[in-house]
Amino acid sequence: MVSKVAHIGIAVKDIAASAELFSKLLGKGMDHTEDVPDQKIRAVTFQVGESSIELTQGTEPDSPIAKFIEKRGEGMHHLSLVVDDIERELARLKAQGFQLIDEKPRLGADGYYIAFLHPRSTNGVLIELSQKKS
Amino acid sequence: MVSKVAHIGIAVKDIAASAELFSKLLGKGMDHTEDVPDQKIRAVTFQVGESSIELTQGTEPDSPIAKFIEKRGEGMHHLSLVVDDIERELARLKAQGFQLIDEKPRLGADGYYIAFLHPRSTNGVLIELSQKKS
Repeated sequence: MVSKVAHIGIAVKDIAASAELFSKLLGKGMDHTEDVPDQKIRAVTFQVGESSIELTQGTEPDSPIAKFIEKRGEGMHHLSLVVDDIERELARLKAQGFQLIDEKPRLGADGYYIAFLHPRSTNGVLIELSQKKS
Repeated sequence: MVSKVAHIGIAVKDIAASAELFSKLLGKGMDHTEDVPDQKIRAVTFQVGESSIELTQGTEPDSPIAKFIEKRGEGMHHLSLVVDDIERELARLKAQGFQLIDEKPRLGADGYYIAFLHPRSTNGVLIELSQKKS
């Protein structure tokens, strides 16, 4: 079951400048910053109600975020949804014809297990499922 | 003050097919559907926690949504944030150098006053401010 929006992921080129910009926009400071070497990203999050806005910069030229920006420019990159049981949701969605990028959950930022669905099967939206590590 | 994410707006070509797709994805039915002639769109929303996912289809070829899809394909179109006082937020953001598309709030879908910021000043993200009509 999907319970809430975990975060909206935004791809940026210069995370320090963007963190300052979003701090002005939201009228508050950032809440969390983290390097995720596995995904070759640096992330900064701003809590907004029960969800967050996650700015991400690629830390290597071959990072998926760097490649996204090269192709499409800065902007919204993915939509992350909180689920109660990520393995069960992946099985359910696969059975319903959704294409999975990750067949099995992996460890993402901020203590979450994550898995991506392919945007080909979700109207061009890169959807991430997230489950808090218990 | 920004209090929560109102919705994530997703531009789609065929809203009936997309509503069915997102219903499967989210494991629930749609919550609201509305035509907004002023913006030349049809919108379908799915409540997810305190926020919602809003699918929008252009109802005219010159709709901003139809033009967006022509240029970039289907996908995430805008991020809507709930504010407590939209006029005050617009004045604050303008003074801080953000570019406004709407200098004054206008009536959007689902009983909200809305105003857009230009993505040029927000890292390529089209930001909508929303305030519930009292």
